[in-house]
Amino acid sequence: MKQLNIGLVGATGAVGLEILKLLKKRNFPVKSLKCFASPRSANTLLPFGEDKIVVEELSDSFASSLDLIFFCAGSLTSKKYIPLATKEGAIVIDNSSAFRLDEGTPLVIPEVNPEALKNHKLLIANPNCATILMLMALSPLHRLAKLKRVVISTYQAASGAGLRAMKDLELETLAHLQGTSYERTVIPHPYAFNLFLHNSPLQDNGYVEEEIKLLKETRKILQDPSIQIAATCVRVPVLRSHAESINAEFHNPISPEEAYHALQNAPGIEFLEDYSKNRFPMPIDATGKDSVFCGRIRKDLSQENTLDLWVVGDQLLKGAALNAVQIAEELYKKS
Amino acid sequence: MKQLNIGLVGATGAVGLEILKLLKKRNFPVKSLKCFASPRSANTLLPFGEDKIVVEELSDSFASSLDLIFFCAGSLTSKKYIPLATKEGAIVIDNSSAFRLDEGTPLVIPEVNPEALKNHKLLIANPNCATILMLMALSPLHRLAKLKRVVISTYQAASGAGLRAMKDLELETLAHLQGTSYERTVIPHPYAFNLFLHNSPLQDNGYVEEEIKLLKETRKILQDPSIQIAATCVRVPVLRSHAESINAEFHNPISPEEAYHALQNAPGIEFLEDYSKNRFPMPIDATGKDSVFCGRIRKDLSQENTLDLWVVGDQLLKGAALNAVQIAEELYKKS
Repeated sequence: MKQLNIGLVGATGAVGLEILKLLKKRNFPVKSLKCFASPRSANTLLPFGEDKIVVEELSDSFASSLDLIFFCAGSLTSKKYIPLATKEGAIVIDNSSAFRLDEGTPLVIPEVNPEALKNHKLLIANPNCATILMLMALSPLHRLAKLKRVVISTYQAASGAGLRAMKDLELETLAHLQGTSYERTVIPHPYAFNLFLHNSPLQDNGYVEEEIKLLKETRKILQDPSIQIAATCVRVPVLRSHAESINAEFHNPISPEEAYHALQNAPGIEFLEDYSKNRFPMPIDATGKDSVFCGRIRKDLSQENTLDLWVVGDQLLKGAALNAVQIAEELYKKS
Repeated sequence: MKQLNIGLVGATGAVGLEILKLLKKRNFPVKSLKCFASPRSANTLLPFGEDKIVVEELSDSFASSLDLIFFCAGSLTSKKYIPLATKEGAIVIDNSSAFRLDEGTPLVIPEVNPEALKNHKLLIANPNCATILMLMALSPLHRLAKLKRVVISTYQAASGAGLRAMKDLELETLAHLQGTSYERTVIPHPYAFNLFLHNSPLQDNGYVEEEIKLLKETRKILQDPSIQIAATCVRVPVLRSHAESINAEFHNPISPEEAYHALQNAPGIEFLEDYSKNRFPMPIDATGKDSVFCGRIRKDLSQENTLDLWVVGDQLLKGAALNAVQIAEELYKKS
């Protein structure tokens, strides 16, 4: 595989740090690596295998010598700097939601819709973490029985709101247990032994942005605008793995056995089940793991052609960094 | 109101201790109070207002001088001692699941189906905590538009598994944060910053008992065997308030405005909403409160005649102890 000059924007964030580790761990063909972050983090040293990389500030010409750039610094940064990068001819994989729904921008989960990469125009979008985990489990079933309507409730970890949110959770919980106080930095509500509805912006229709992402991104990735999704997204006091309670209705009959068979043969899916011990995937099982863990597929007794299932995955890995690196691997495998 | 000789079985447990507080706080007409618990807890002193009550062991004649007995010590104790109590003519309010589905045993939420108390044969069952909270919100809507099918995912607190589970959560989390170890006493899975599917026994149909309770108890309480419920019950690292993500389909049209109106006028329901701040009920809001908190009722965009709503309530109060005491109040108000 061709050796590449790589850029990583948002390198000091939770997802950026995971991408750094994955590039090394997966022997990605890195000829050179430049790390970028906000001025606050400039000159920080980041470990990359044996090396230390000096974090730089972004400039208008930051992309001039780069072949491939991962963006994981939020929508505003993506909107400002991605056009500059693609103008220089660099390929960009963007973890933000800035361009996900733009026509002409592939939105890709490599196990689900690798073919969408074919016609990229330098920019590829990485889907929302909750969408990736859900579709890793649902797309093999969709192929079998055509998805009609999903009711999903999420159990989302702190990591989705970044490193400081994870610290908020730990430090506020410790203070709570020790009877002292702690001032949260990013999490808007008390978080120690508490949970709250996902704090992305509320739309006029009563859904929060995160819930609408699940719907719109699913329709785009599965190329089926008729799929219906009713989502409720909840932030729980868990550090870095999301869980999802999924009720999926299909157009055609599908048995739990057929669903098991399809998922057992699906790439990136693992089962973790011990019915005798009532033991199914938990966030700590998925933490640090590449796979999306499924379990407890059951026939919904309340409606025809409907299954319930439980899905857990590392929000920072398959939910973000790993999927981005896999997109890059898929791209250069083809080239 | 007639002064009563009261018994409290399971007095040293999480629910028992709340009943003790509620009897005093609500000025329940207590002539005398006897507290019972397992031999391990015998001779413990429990505070009851200014008094201290000595905990006794259960004996075959424990009920001989009692008018009304609250049972909150688990199904096995209920099965063994409730027949002895009713034989003595005592009225029993049972918090366990032992007799809930028995024909002839009223299963009562006083705000929902007080009429079911009419024909009691000394024994009245207190519903499951998750069922009570769900039906407090759904029954006013059911009256308006006839409930057809519910998809519910729960976020259940440690308290549902008792005082020791609450201690497990706190102490394991503290140990985790301090880098030490802690041996859990009742919770079967790691619980610090983790969650897991509800650990009640698994049925052959793939559902756990807690999920089946939601279905069967709802059908009994609302007297409608056609209601369908697909439930996924999850234990989250929260101390004593349950949350529920509810997707409810009705036979007839119902708008969010109609639902708000019905619930705003429903007893025992409070709204806690600030859309501008993305602020809806959280477990810590409900903790120690009598009300069931609702919020974020929205039209389900994915299906006709369907609403999404979010419900939070104190598991130990309205989910258990308060509902039991309210049943007693309702009974003696009538007599």
